[in-house]
Amino acid sequence: MTHHSFTPQTLHNSIGSHAPALVIASGDTVTAATADAHGFDWRGVEIACRPNPMTGPFFIEGAEPGDTLLVTIRDIRMTRPTGWTFDVLSPNVVDPQAVHRFPTRRKTEWLIDAAAGRARLAEPPPALATWSVAVEPMIGCFGVAPDMGQAISTATSGRYGGNMDYRGFRPGVEVMFPVSVPGALFFLGDVHAQQCDGEIVGTGIETAAEVTFTARVMKGQKIGWPRGMTAIEIFTIGNARPLDQALQHATTEMLDWLMADFGLDAVAASHVMGQCVRYDVANVFNPAYSVVCRVARAALP
Amino acid sequence: MTHHSFTPQTLHNSIGSHAPALVIASGDTVTAATADAHGFDWRGVEIACRPNPMTGPFFIEGAEPGDTLLVTIRDIRMTRPTGWTFDVLSPNVVDPQAVHRFPTRRKTEWLIDAAAGRARLAEPPPALATWSVAVEPMIGCFGVAPDMGQAISTATSGRYGGNMDYRGFRPGVEVMFPVSVPGALFFLGDVHAQQCDGEIVGTGIETAAEVTFTARVMKGQKIGWPRGMTAIEIFTIGNARPLDQALQHATTEMLDWLMADFGLDAVAASHVMGQCVRYDVANVFNPAYSVVCRVARAALP
Amino acid sequence: MTHHSFTPQTLHNSIGSHAPALVIASGDTVTAATADAHGFDWRGVEIACRPNPMTGPFFIEGAEPGDTLLVTIRDIRMTRPTGWTFDVLSPNVVDPQAVHRFPTRRKTEWLIDAAAGRARLAEPPPALATWSVAVEPMIGCFGVAPDMGQAISTATSGRYGGNMDYRGFRPGVEVMFPVSVPGALFFLGDVHAQQCDGEIVGTGIETAAEVTFTARVMKGQKIGWPRGMTAIEIFTIGNARPLDQALQHATTEMLDWLMADFGLDAVAASHVMGQCVRYDVANVFNPAYSVVCRVARAALP
Amino acid sequence: MTHHSFTPQTLHNSIGSHAPALVIASGDTVTAATADAHGFDWRGVEIACRPNPMTGPFFIEGAEPGDTLLVTIRDIRMTRPTGWTFDVLSPNVVDPQAVHRFPTRRKTEWLIDAAAGRARLAEPPPALATWSVAVEPMIGCFGVAPDMGQAISTATSGRYGGNMDYRGFRPGVEVMFPVSVPGALFFLGDVHAQQCDGEIVGTGIETAAEVTFTARVMKGQKIGWPRGMTAIEIFTIGNARPLDQALQHATTEMLDWLMADFGLDAVAASHVMGQCVRYDVANVFNPAYSVVCRVARAALP
Repeated sequence: MTHHSFTPQTLHNSIGSHAPALVIASGDTVTAATADAHGFDWRGVEIACRPNPMTGPFFIEGAEPGDTLLVTIRDIRMTRPTGWTFDVLSPNVVDPQAVHRFPTRRKTEWLIDAAAGRARLAEPPPALATWSVAVEPMIGCFGVAPDMGQAISTATSGRYGGNMDYRGFRPGVEVMFPVSVPGALFFLGDVHAQQCDGEIVGTGIETAAEVTFTARVMKGQKIGWPRGMTAIEIFTIGNARPLDQALQHATTEMLDWLMADFGLDAVAASHVMGQCVRYDVANVFNPAYSVVCRVARAALP
Repeated sequence: MTHHSFTPQTLHNSIGSHAPALVIASGDTVTAATADAHGFDWRGVEIACRPNPMTGPFFIEGAEPGDTLLVTIRDIRMTRPTGWTFDVLSPNVVDPQAVHRFPTRRKTEWLIDAAAGRARLAEPPPALATWSVAVEPMIGCFGVAPDMGQAISTATSGRYGGNMDYRGFRPGVEVMFPVSVPGALFFLGDVHAQQCDGEIVGTGIETAAEVTFTARVMKGQKIGWPRGMTAIEIFTIGNARPLDQALQHATTEMLDWLMADFGLDAVAASHVMGQCVRYDVANVFNPAYSVVCRVARAALP
Repeated sequence: MTHHSFTPQTLHNSIGSHAPALVIASGDTVTAATADAHGFDWRGVEIACRPNPMTGPFFIEGAEPGDTLLVTIRDIRMTRPTGWTFDVLSPNVVDPQAVHRFPTRRKTEWLIDAAAGRARLAEPPPALATWSVAVEPMIGCFGVAPDMGQAISTATSGRYGGNMDYRGFRPGVEVMFPVSVPGALFFLGDVHAQQCDGEIVGTGIETAAEVTFTARVMKGQKIGWPRGMTAIEIFTIGNARPLDQALQHATTEMLDWLMADFGLDAVAASHVMGQCVRYDVANVFNPAYSVVCRVARAALP
Repeated sequence: MTHHSFTPQTLHNSIGSHAPALVIASGDTVTAATADAHGFDWRGVEIACRPNPMTGPFFIEGAEPGDTLLVTIRDIRMTRPTGWTFDVLSPNVVDPQAVHRFPTRRKTEWLIDAAAGRARLAEPPPALATWSVAVEPMIGCFGVAPDMGQAISTATSGRYGGNMDYRGFRPGVEVMFPVSVPGALFFLGDVHAQQCDGEIVGTGIETAAEVTFTARVMKGQKIGWPRGMTAIEIFTIGNARPLDQALQHATTEMLDWLMADFGLDAVAASHVMGQCVRYDVANVFNPAYSVVCRVARAALP
């Protein structure tokens, strides 16, 4: 169980079968630096291209197609005192008739006080002079190489993970990805200091970070879409457009999970899900939207 | 400030300009019995037709088109020890390829123990023998007469409210509806003892109830979609298909609210919403889906 | 087989169980005047409110719930030498990022030369100085009273018909509507001199007209959505949002038709539809979009 | 202007920056063999994997990012007397409640009589004993390497083209693709002997073929989505889910075209499109749906 420290040299704008940046054993822990969504590092130096340059890939020994990669997010450390967001709602999240209300979007700087756990606009409009938000770091984009030799832009997402922008991908969460290539080839980056449901301005508070994670291979465990676990709940995530289809994917994956691992048939699983499911709209901005289907552990029989 | 007790004689399967069942003053409180979604009352007697027969309408004196009706949900009392649900996920919430996994849906009985605050299946499958859920009553369908002389089925919803099936419509919540006709003509019914996000089996635990509410006219206050308030947050709800459009309506209504009542311009409102919004998928089953956009009071400047 | 001439006194902005304007026998023909979508008649006088004021309803003797009403469009005569359109694409039919390119929409006048069969802008921009389009009149909004006592705005559509805005509703077409109330209660109006697929500026060339139709009751014939027939093809129309669902409704109705009336099982019907179906996007503007599923008679076994 | 004859050795299941199979000059013509969607060639021998193995890529000298590649489809010759389809409608094109009507889908053989120009089921059900369809060959999947080093499955499509499955991609059509990499890297395959609108059984009549095309570089011509031209019309194609978004992409691209090349401003272009546009639903089956926006040359000013 080695603990690696990793600083990326070459970052990737697609998730695919790129040459491994580091080979690790199943169970190893890595602390890896990540650049922000536009490629700026902890010093504010542009070290990679947009969108969402990825640190990695990490080749996890023993991972084979058909396995599952379990990634435990141990820590996300803010390494830069600044972040940025866009400053207007994305045109696709308001009524088409309301789009004209917004000026052209601009990049806006935020000041991140990691010690105090608060972030605020560097140059707030008067109405927000004293307004701030909590620092609750999350991983915007991570996943494993997709099948069929594909290499897919880090702007979007799929069964392999990718740019899901879910505020629930926080320290303490265990995330499962379906392995499609030998070594899984795990990528990560695009950390946000804070983000709402839906990522409706098109960004969280984008910043550089240092992520500590543990990667473990679950041999012979086959899943269809990314899954997650916390102390209090289990969840699945579906990535597609429109939201309806993302929700269908997440719901079907939860059904599969309850039927395979919790001893429920289709009717019993429907009863549990039908009274207890919670949905999160992770992002409604990226080329593929992401919807999360959650079930509290207390609701499971 | 009279407190009326009301037992419906004629229930309605559409929300429209029907003859008032009771005329009340602004600020009055009403305790009204409601039948379940298939028209069965507290005794289990079928007193009305499906779907979702409505108690009312209540004519609130002084309400005029362009005003807002503020309804405070004071109490929802369970009046029947049984409820029912459908027993399989609705085919539209899973991947089309997964639809075949489910048997034909059946109505399933639940036992509601209001004193203990728990509900359980009357004849559970073995895997759910000891499984139960909390009783957390909510109003499935309520609203005011729509404009242009329309009368719209209680299966669906719109700007006027209707069958929104949001688990957040619980005691303690204040709900606002846009008034389109003199007296507003407020209807309510379709109480659920419990319901998940999305109402993904097509029902909550459907039951009869007694709802106590206060109705107050907000003169000259114009809103576009239903809004709500609790001690800790404000919210808006949009009703449409697909989810994307329901979300657009709710988001635009929240933008309107923040700009009109909280002194924010489009950019400042975008900053607040862009880091703090929460979405709930109220229902993803009815002809119109419902999405809720929430902002915590603590996040407001 | 009487031929009635009808001039409306009261026009309706909802399709519902309004008092019959004229009672006719099954098989009768009516020539009825219609106002344009904003309520202006052949003289340009505003005789009704927007949207889409309807002429009717016509009570067809013998029609009962569960029957089908067959309406043959015999003629649509232009009665006004002017029409109007909106002048910019609707914001929902372009990418959200492109919405800002358009100025605020305006009503624009067209000159209709019915004798020559051409229409042109009254004050064209220089680039369109000599540009004109064919006059091909169609009915934008027609249908029968919906079930459950509903009265639904003429802005939208459903199983009962309504504001489908399909350019294929032209003279020579036979259209079927599912009857939900005694007498069917048939309404019509909103004639367009021309319209593209999708009605993407939100209007066709809106004008007043005189429509001649024959209405016949098909006893005991039950359909789910409006259907149509011409000399060369049969078609069904589905009305919903998004386009995907409108297409599902139309496709399912065509499947029902082929299986019930053409002796095909699900596989044989799939073969025919799977190589021969044509789709039209009737409108992608109204609250419910409309998609048409067509099969050439020559492709039917 | 060389005419090359090309037989593929290695076929590709993704469209990306693979090593060129043949380098050609701008203006050259190629006659290339293609395998069917499951990798079977003209002899019925499985020479490649599913889905949609591509012939190519062809490196066109002089093509640079920002240029447009113009591909003229000169001929599609049937090289196998058999094809295949799936035999039931795809579950996503019917109402979710109708999915259960279909048996499990099977691959079904067709006999293609290229000389007679007809195709028929090899073992038809009795109801289709004498039924046949025209042979009208089209290209299901073709396009150029996408940007950012991506390699994307041939199951789907995007701005670069891909699996658009449009029955209009037939001999005589000129198709434009936006070039993202040096040499453009053009791929093609997945020929269908016939296909309806929407590809609603998930296939056309899948078969092997020999395609003759000419590829020409349009230097400095930048487009956003694939475009096409025939003698009588121009068209654009948008690829996305849901249909609404595919239609938005196609409509916006047509707007761009009319404004850039036909001297129309946003209002004049709206007038032309608003009365004259035709839409085709190319496919409503693949991960990205495809919608075509057409304008007749006669309707252009």
